[in-house]
Amino acid sequence: MNIVLLDPRQTQSETWTITSKRQLEHLHNHVEVQVGDTLKVGIREGKRYLTEIVNVSENAIEIQQIEQQGVPAKLPVTLIVAMPRPKVLRRLIMDAVTLGVEKIILLHSYRVDKSYWQTPFLQQLEHYVTLGLEQAGDTIAPQIEQHKRFKPFVEDILPTLITQEKPAFVAHPYVTAKMPCAINHACTIIIGPEGGFIPYEIDLLVKNGCQAVSLGSRIIRTETVIAYALGRLFGTT
Amino acid sequence: MNIVLLDPRQTQSETWTITSKRQLEHLHNHVEVQVGDTLKVGIREGKRYLTEIVNVSENAIEIQQIEQQGVPAKLPVTLIVAMPRPKVLRRLIMDAVTLGVEKIILLHSYRVDKSYWQTPFLQQLEHYVTLGLEQAGDTIAPQIEQHKRFKPFVEDILPTLITQEKPAFVAHPYVTAKMPCAINHACTIIIGPEGGFIPYEIDLLVKNGCQAVSLGSRIIRTETVIAYALGRLFGTT
Repeated sequence: MNIVLLDPRQTQSETWTITSKRQLEHLHNHVEVQVGDTLKVGIREGKRYLTEIVNVSENAIEIQQIEQQGVPAKLPVTLIVAMPRPKVLRRLIMDAVTLGVEKIILLHSYRVDKSYWQTPFLQQLEHYVTLGLEQAGDTIAPQIEQHKRFKPFVEDILPTLITQEKPAFVAHPYVTAKMPCAINHACTIIIGPEGGFIPYEIDLLVKNGCQAVSLGSRIIRTETVIAYALGRLFGTT
Repeated sequence: MNIVLLDPRQTQSETWTITSKRQLEHLHNHVEVQVGDTLKVGIREGKRYLTEIVNVSENAIEIQQIEQQGVPAKLPVTLIVAMPRPKVLRRLIMDAVTLGVEKIILLHSYRVDKSYWQTPFLQQLEHYVTLGLEQAGDTIAPQIEQHKRFKPFVEDILPTLITQEKPAFVAHPYVTAKMPCAINHACTIIIGPEGGFIPYEIDLLVKNGCQAVSLGSRIIRTETVIAYALGRLFGTT
């Protein structure tokens, strides 16, 4: 947790009060905050501030703003990823948010087990987003969409996301074209499931405007390839 | 598991036999292999082959080679990383191996809890390397070193790793110089612990030949920043 995210309703008065069990536990046990310490705080969907701790108790920490701080810019990228195994979902969302992805779309695919869509973790997305924002020092949550039908999404919705200024790249190990690097424009990247998209899905993605590109001959896990591809695409930021 | 790694001693005769419980469990339950199927197999520290399955039983799968396949090239990078929390160690090693890091150095640092060096997971490094190689389709294990004293390593060993052709970059959020992208030469990257290196450590690293460079204003977890930095540095591969 590199900033403490507060709800706008917590920041109406001059003194703000941190009351979340999770945040208090971290500040008490890991940071061991004391009156007079400074604390980086973000207001959800709002600004970021350096604050001073003015009162500390077991169930509340009171702070007052010292100065405004910048919020890190987002990466101009839409990440479309095949719905991962539940145990991977948390880390995938957290990492994508931490790295600054603007929009995340969870998509069904032939090799996605239908049971993945039943996981209770999908009720936790908001929490994973908060953890990612607090890690990155960001305050603005990305949009997250879920599309449980591959063909209608690829044929009807995906084309509306693709423009000449914002191309879409699907990572596919078996093509010679390489994913570009250090681009200076927006894009959409599409990451398949464990085992990859099936040929029919790759064909449909390409037919609907995606470029199939390779990240090299190594096969990288979904949760790892996202950071690898984002670092490659946005290396100049 | 995208290839099955065998010990050279398992590949002396014409027919090779897979007997590892872990590998058999995967091939039986996830791949559901049958006689006649092809299987990608690597020989540890050796070549990679497409093989055909000639016999399947509960406790053994027999294969014969069809043709040799290429082993993916390593990234010309030495990764020096502050010893992570035990629960992060497995993933960090697996990802670094999967991504093709040539050499991994686990280093102590002021903000590394000394207890991390006592974790039984350090006895599992060999296993994590195997998992990473089987994920990537690689057969060559990276070197892994452990250095439990920061100052002697940085002053006596690190300088011997740095040349004009192989610079060293330490990721540090509070500098204006940016980590380069899409380089076409070898390098060493140094990743600090949770909470970062302390100023004394950054100073000592710089004094001993490292360039402190930033990856942007977002603070990224150790296990995520490695893939992000490698994608950025080696975007042209």
